[in-house]
Amino acid sequence: MTFNVIGIDLPDEQNFWKIMRANMGKPPVLSTDENMNHVYKNAYENRNMMATYSTYAFSKADIVVIDINLDVKKRYVGNPYDYIFTYENFKSAIKTVADNISENTLVVIESTVPPGTTQKVIYPIFLESFRNRGLDINKLYLSYSYERVMPGPSYLSSIINFYRVYSGINKESKLKAKAFFESFINTKDYPLFELHSTTAAEMAKVLENSYRAMNIAFIQEWTEYAEKAHVNLFEVIEAIRVRPTHKNIMLPGFGVGGYCLTKDPLLANWSYQNLYNCDGTLKMSIDAVAVNDLMPDYTYSLLKQEVGVLKDKFITILGISYLGDVADTRHTPTDLFYDRCMREGAIVKLHDPLVGFWQERGLKVETDIKSLGDSRHDIAVFATRHKQYLTMSADDILSILPGVKVILDANNIINDDVAEKLSSNGIKMIGVGKGHWNSLRRNDG
Amino acid sequence: MTFNVIGIDLPDEQNFWKIMRANMGKPPVLSTDENMNHVYKNAYENRNMMATYSTYAFSKADIVVIDINLDVKKRYVGNPYDYIFTYENFKSAIKTVADNISENTLVVIESTVPPGTTQKVIYPIFLESFRNRGLDINKLYLSYSYERVMPGPSYLSSIINFYRVYSGINKESKLKAKAFFESFINTKDYPLFELHSTTAAEMAKVLENSYRAMNIAFIQEWTEYAEKAHVNLFEVIEAIRVRPTHKNIMLPGFGVGGYCLTKDPLLANWSYQNLYNCDGTLKMSIDAVAVNDLMPDYTYSLLKQEVGVLKDKFITILGISYLGDVADTRHTPTDLFYDRCMREGAIVKLHDPLVGFWQERGLKVETDIKSLGDSRHDIAVFATRHKQYLTMSADDILSILPGVKVILDANNIINDDVAEKLSSNGIKMIGVGKGHWNSLRRNDG
Repeated sequence: MTFNVIGIDLPDEQNFWKIMRANMGKPPVLSTDENMNHVYKNAYENRNMMATYSTYAFSKADIVVIDINLDVKKRYVGNPYDYIFTYENFKSAIKTVADNISENTLVVIESTVPPGTTQKVIYPIFLESFRNRGLDINKLYLSYSYERVMPGPSYLSSIINFYRVYSGINKESKLKAKAFFESFINTKDYPLFELHSTTAAEMAKVLENSYRAMNIAFIQEWTEYAEKAHVNLFEVIEAIRVRPTHKNIMLPGFGVGGYCLTKDPLLANWSYQNLYNCDGTLKMSIDAVAVNDLMPDYTYSLLKQEVGVLKDKFITILGISYLGDVADTRHTPTDLFYDRCMREGAIVKLHDPLVGFWQERGLKVETDIKSLGDSRHDIAVFATRHKQYLTMSADDILSILPGVKVILDANNIINDDVAEKLSSNGIKMIGVGKGHWNSLRRNDG
Repeated sequence: MTFNVIGIDLPDEQNFWKIMRANMGKPPVLSTDENMNHVYKNAYENRNMMATYSTYAFSKADIVVIDINLDVKKRYVGNPYDYIFTYENFKSAIKTVADNISENTLVVIESTVPPGTTQKVIYPIFLESFRNRGLDINKLYLSYSYERVMPGPSYLSSIINFYRVYSGINKESKLKAKAFFESFINTKDYPLFELHSTTAAEMAKVLENSYRAMNIAFIQEWTEYAEKAHVNLFEVIEAIRVRPTHKNIMLPGFGVGGYCLTKDPLLANWSYQNLYNCDGTLKMSIDAVAVNDLMPDYTYSLLKQEVGVLKDKFITILGISYLGDVADTRHTPTDLFYDRCMREGAIVKLHDPLVGFWQERGLKVETDIKSLGDSRHDIAVFATRHKQYLTMSADDILSILPGVKVILDANNIINDDVAEKLSSNGIKMIGVGKGHWNSLRRNDG
């Protein structure tokens, strides 16, 4: 099925360029997925896609899909119990939709929200608006369904070829939502999951991300323990993951970034306390966020333990993006680590093949790895699992980082063979989760 | 390969019967696995297995496999930070082995131990004993490998047909352990995992059980939340589990019992603090045990919420074993729940098809489900996922529990159709993780 699509966003500087790009037949944000370029070009040629600031389009829509950010602001790094959350902007955006749509429109909420939001926050806005406008609220079709999209080269396919969860405020809303999803999702291979309530569907989203956040935090605890016991936790986890009941156990790493895992447990907690008036907190889930937010400090402590004073040391950080082969710096763990190094007076150089400019910090980043060879490096920290780093040989690393004395692998990037070669070249190798790397190859009992 | 096996245990009352049974060609503990009867009978007929109290046998052994319990005693239910752990009995058992074995013996430790135990506790005992006896410590082959055996009808197969993790204190110990495991494990389909150190192998065991414990505790938090939000968490988790990254997410339940998940995180924590002198605790792992130990209190609170005063109410608990289709009452969650009901003056009846006598409480348990029909039942609590309960129809339940007014499904035992029928018979249905069960079938938005 082909839809005529109108993309609507708020009038601000960033969106200006997004809307421009979309109207020129290009994805609004750069994508490593070639298919994204293709579908935008296609839509441009077929003239069935336009982008605008104007909210006028709502009145003409059969279907309105809402993907507005609902943010949480933590006051301090490492204390996710102290956060600020408000519906303010979200509610006014919903009101704009409610005040403009016609009867018989299907509204699909895709934003990640505190569970209960569709029933307790969104529906009342539509109810009031429809009443004021003399429309029949029974002709509103309101549904909730979240994205499980994967950033990176399979972006588009991850929308089409994956299981979709949805619900609606009544039977008709569910039916209309179902028909909509069947029109573009490969439901033959990935059947839809219809849940009983929109609250259940909202909960599925924050639960699946909290599950992930919690499992990452759990392994951090064991990473620190394993290091004290000189155990390489990667080989331990490899031996555990073969069990079907233990396949999701996470690996040690540098930290957690991005938009979802860093905040979704807080949205759940907000709902728990404010929409359902529960005492207490979702303690394990929030504790997990606390551990994850401070994870880069562990990498930093390993470095301090080995090197001591960092003042005036030349530190090269390889990887700004929070995820390998993706150009996304939102809440990247590199941020805290960079901050720690700078505060101690280190001279920090940044590299990332995909991030030329670090938006949040307003910093230029080197993208050409070869040009690093002209600089001084005392310490190199591999932070992001970019393919470019994963495929480097010991010789590559030696030529790119001349004179480097300490290499810290924070994210399981350098394999044992390469590490051994670098070590035999007199470089001190440290690795998060690697135990005491230099003694790995000995049979030390 | 056939071994001549001598089983050795301490001389006490319980072991008397185990040794008797083994020497009569029967498994020392009753097993629901027919193969266990078969192999013991076989060994009896071939005369290559005997059991004894005598430690004399150690001196003749080529291989000594050690499976001595290493227990943790919690002082209070729900506060696993306050526990007692001692190596005392374990060390004296190891010393008995060390004082009796010959040179060139392979010793395989299979007990779950605080990581570091083989290197820091067990090896020194052998070292001292060998020195005293004038033996060459280089002719000791010491290895560590843990069991991943599954209780129940596939007991024997779960030893043979599953991945085995092992290590040894040196290269020779690893080689001998490898040869031993290859002699009885199906390593073609389930390759061995040799880890660098015995500490790594010890850590694998407590980590995999802590992982499980933590994931159960995590879901308990969301079970309580979902109930407040009237969400059926089972349908939510069903929608999440299809993601390969989320397959291990656990279901709501009654509690955690058995010998491993209730204590292994504490063994890890003991090692962390005492063998590696770390400050702090393995917080997430211990918190998980705290949550799990108190899980049955949640079922109890649901019941209280619905029924109010339990004094003089007739409560029937279906399931004493901690696991379905297994007769094992160690640390069963039924214990805490039973205790709560008794303290409030309820009249509690117990049923379990596999447990005729509840060892830890010294109580007789009804095994014949039909005989329940003769008793009075106000409230029935389904606690254990025994096949007998899972396959009961609404009519079965009505005839077995005449006059019952409230049925609480604590462990996802009664399916929605059966629950609906029971509900339409005027029975109040409550279920852990079911949201508000009676409203499930409505499209309540």
